[in-house]
Amino acid sequence: MLTLYDYLPSGNGYKVRLLLSQLGRPFRLVEKDILEGETRTPEFLAINPNGRIPVLELEDGRRLAESGAILFYLADGTPFLPDDGFTRAEMLQWMFFEQYSHEPYIAVARFWTHYLGKPVDAEKMERGYQALDVMERHLASRRFFVGERYTIADIALYAYTHVAHEGGFDLVAYPNIRAWLSRVAAEPGHVPIMARR
Amino acid sequence: MLTLYDYLPSGNGYKVRLLLSQLGRPFRLVEKDILEGETRTPEFLAINPNGRIPVLELEDGRRLAESGAILFYLADGTPFLPDDGFTRAEMLQWMFFEQYSHEPYIAVARFWTHYLGKPVDAEKMERGYQALDVMERHLASRRFFVGERYTIADIALYAYTHVAHEGGFDLVAYPNIRAWLSRVAAEPGHVPIMARR
Repeated sequence: MLTLYDYLPSGNGYKVRLLLSQLGRPFRLVEKDILEGETRTPEFLAINPNGRIPVLELEDGRRLAESGAILFYLADGTPFLPDDGFTRAEMLQWMFFEQYSHEPYIAVARFWTHYLGKPVDAEKMERGYQALDVMERHLASRRFFVGERYTIADIALYAYTHVAHEGGFDLVAYPNIRAWLSRVAAEPGHVPIMARR
Repeated sequence: MLTLYDYLPSGNGYKVRLLLSQLGRPFRLVEKDILEGETRTPEFLAINPNGRIPVLELEDGRRLAESGAILFYLADGTPFLPDDGFTRAEMLQWMFFEQYSHEPYIAVARFWTHYLGKPVDAEKMERGYQALDVMERHLASRRFFVGERYTIADIALYAYTHVAHEGGFDLVAYPNIRAWLSRVAAEPGHVPIMARR
């Protein structure tokens, strides 16, 4: 059986849990509490030298880190990852956008506000809204991010967007994003972020 | 012919120029000066709504942003991107690592120090060294990052690591990284960062 090292409040971990649920693949969940430093112990650094969850461990012991890489691996050969080369590259474009231009602001603001109770500086909030602006414009003429179907690009962007309010982001001015969030939540096999399976 | 919107000092752009050179694919270079705000004009935002280079434009007008996505698209079907699913996921793991845990510190420190003449805070430097530590340990028993061959994972990590000194990073304590930098620079078709083709 697959093993997932994860922390339930993590959107990066949730991406993998959501896809595993929608693929109907059972997995063993090993929880590591980030707030307790459990991803920085020598034991965990032997699992992922970069000290981050999620980490997927295969039956044969091979391991993968980075949510985007794990999604790509698990979705290969399924409808969540279309075959066409350009379509795949477009999906990766949005997945890299999420990790570079979205997560460092929207996820980090949520972590500081909701989990650490620390204030978030205005620049971080502005950059987060810039990412939301890009998404809102893209969704003006589309139901999903790539190829007019639900893919791992949507899963990657949904994870922290649907809890952006926990970081102080107001989605009132983003009707296209809100409609897309509802479409994603209505997909078969959808599970909420704190669900263990 | 392919068109690449790019800024020569950019390591993200360099990744694409290096691969195009090694693939022997000609391209038209359209330079956009980040320091002059040329990636934030309405004209450029119509090309990439996220306002960043590099952007690859195909002969038929379709466009791709995000260096990692562009590398993946161009390398597909070539020796720079092995076919095996797990190997591909491992490469993506390192490419996401680069964009999330490496570039925001090592590339940003270089941009501030070398191009803006601004000081870089200690935390950014520390995070950059943490990324270098992860790379150094991984290379202790390997010639290249994934599958013992030169791939786009090496290209992605080489781009900003080989100019890390411009951000104030000292690689003296990183012999494995230095040996790997030399191996990458010795690959056929290698071009320096400021080369136009």
